[in-house]
Amino acid sequence: MPNKVQEFNEYRQKMNDKILADDNKVIKRIFNLDTNTFKEGHLPVKTKELLGLVASAVLRCDDCIKYHLESAMKNNVTKEEMMETMSIATLVGGTIVIPHLRKAVEFWEALENEAKNV
Amino acid sequence: MPNKVQEFNEYRQKMNDKILADDNKVIKRIFNLDTNTFKEGHLPVKTKELLGLVASAVLRCDDCIKYHLESAMKNNVTKEEMMETMSIATLVGGTIVIPHLRKAVEFWEALENEAKNV
Amino acid sequence: MPNKVQEFNEYRQKMNDKILADDNKVIKRIFNLDTNTFKEGHLPVKTKELLGLVASAVLRCDDCIKYHLESAMKNNVTKEEMMETMSIATLVGGTIVIPHLRKAVEFWEALENEAKNV
Amino acid sequence: MPNKVQEFNEYRQKMNDKILADDNKVIKRIFNLDTNTFKEGHLPVKTKELLGLVASAVLRCDDCIKYHLESAMKNNVTKEEMMETMSIATLVGGTIVIPHLRKAVEFWEALENEAKNV
Amino acid sequence: MPNKVQEFNEYRQKMNDKILADDNKVIKRIFNLDTNTFKEGHLPVKTKELLGLVASAVLRCDDCIKYHLESAMKNNVTKEEMMETMSIATLVGGTIVIPHLRKAVEFWEALENEAKNV
Amino acid sequence: MPNKVQEFNEYRQKMNDKILADDNKVIKRIFNLDTNTFKEGHLPVKTKELLGLVASAVLRCDDCIKYHLESAMKNNVTKEEMMETMSIATLVGGTIVIPHLRKAVEFWEALENEAKNV
Repeated sequence: MPNKVQEFNEYRQKMNDKILADDNKVIKRIFNLDTNTFKEGHLPVKTKELLGLVASAVLRCDDCIKYHLESAMKNNVTKEEMMETMSIATLVGGTIVIPHLRKAVEFWEALENEAKNV
Repeated sequence: MPNKVQEFNEYRQKMNDKILADDNKVIKRIFNLDTNTFKEGHLPVKTKELLGLVASAVLRCDDCIKYHLESAMKNNVTKEEMMETMSIATLVGGTIVIPHLRKAVEFWEALENEAKNV
Repeated sequence: MPNKVQEFNEYRQKMNDKILADDNKVIKRIFNLDTNTFKEGHLPVKTKELLGLVASAVLRCDDCIKYHLESAMKNNVTKEEMMETMSIATLVGGTIVIPHLRKAVEFWEALENEAKNV
Repeated sequence: MPNKVQEFNEYRQKMNDKILADDNKVIKRIFNLDTNTFKEGHLPVKTKELLGLVASAVLRCDDCIKYHLESAMKNNVTKEEMMETMSIATLVGGTIVIPHLRKAVEFWEALENEAKNV
Repeated sequence: MPNKVQEFNEYRQKMNDKILADDNKVIKRIFNLDTNTFKEGHLPVKTKELLGLVASAVLRCDDCIKYHLESAMKNNVTKEEMMETMSIATLVGGTIVIPHLRKAVEFWEALENEAKNV
Repeated sequence: MPNKVQEFNEYRQKMNDKILADDNKVIKRIFNLDTNTFKEGHLPVKTKELLGLVASAVLRCDDCIKYHLESAMKNNVTKEEMMETMSIATLVGGTIVIPHLRKAVEFWEALENEAKNV
């Protein structure tokens, strides 16, 4: 059975490696900045991950949603908190967010299954 | 042979059930509102479905397009009317709408085949 | 007292004239196509204007909304029909559409005042 | 001297009143839902306001940003937390968010001045 | 082994043929205009293809990106120039462009392999 | 008579100074990256400015368009080349780009007047 979480992470890692190997300084710095932005600051990491999640959801970027769902779970976000975040996204961004909500709920379930199997 | 219409509807139903089971009141109300919005009002259902279709098309939401194509066909929208609606979407939203137009025409064809087999 | 309708139309006309004077063939054809797209076809002009309005609203283009509100009123769209169209835009496009709904209602009022004064 | 905060709130209130007077049920329910969504839930109000802010910022809706900035300040969000939220918006949404960041910083300053004068 | 380039082109051609067979004049003219817009003008074809690429990337349209990548390679765009174009897209459009950058790099690789096999 | 070019630049500078004074590292780095991205690289500055312009236009960011128009003129972009770039934006991004085209042509004219007066 295909593992949605592993598939996503492996493709992401493989392509990120190729992109960074290309030595485009702007892209490298953006990747680097992405890591730094979500570190502990005036706001805790958990809040930042929810901010990243809602931004990804209203901009309707499935891969970005998956990435933040995974980080959110690692930072002890509960399903209720995740759903509340997605409900804000659906209200602010409209019903066009719903197809991404479906995929988010599906991926969250895959992450839960992954967590049980570790 | 996979049936695009059934696949779409089954996945959509399965995930909607999971989402609604989560008991997030905001999301439940948005789902409920979605049903009410497209009911007969000052504008007929058929016009509303075309409004939903063009909104989905310019916002480039394939699943939303499919949903409104299916409702549109049930409400006696002809292919010419559907194409005219999509032409407005392509003009207003630009050539980035074209990939979604391709998928819309493909799904409409699947809906026509489905209708013949009933 | 500044007249919002006249101001909008005068600026629009002045700049359109300058743009068309520049003799860029692609832009000229798009302007020309815009006029043709909203003519009577398989769908009546009134429905097409509502399609143009909802597309403009979810894409949050105030000037496009104003343009279609004016054409809609000329084609006997009632306020109830306009509001129903905007309600679909607000549901599908989310609460970020609301600021544009405010301006739409304000411009519709200006159009009504304009109509009384003719 | 014009007061940006009062101007914004007065126009917003005036037009919301007109919109709600129109008795469109879908729009009324969306307005009502908007109020409920940002109430205390599994997530605290402060976090929800930051989620509303970042969603508004990446969708580049100045009026929505202003609305959430005002609520954020009322809920004890500090300037550092606000800027951190906006930095996530600028990274995720790109440099096209910067003009909205400029207006956000300007409005935050107006809110601070307003607070001093109370 | 599936050939990503051929698959993309065949589906695109098949659906374009169906769309054009439908005889919707607005859509036909937009398709026609699309061909004319990217022809040599005041700007060379190569620059125009990069403009089409960056526009497609910030609007996050994978199929449009693929189409312009293929034309760009035919017009002697180097990988470094392509990556520099995509870096502008990622800065201006934000990190939500990154998933499309991954697919762009993957498709460019497929185009390079295709070129070797001719 | 208000000078559109000076007004734009002064407001932009004033707010950028305030933003950078806030010492948010992520935002500082994005501002810094913005400067570096548009420097000579594998692509000449002039091409990069046109890429920045078309990206800003399809994303419908008036302030970003103005910024790139000013840089484009400094880098010897002709009006014909600017209009050709905007025509690609209007085709790819749709007729919702037209209101931004109007403002772009107006600002270009202001830049031309400014250049004559120097």
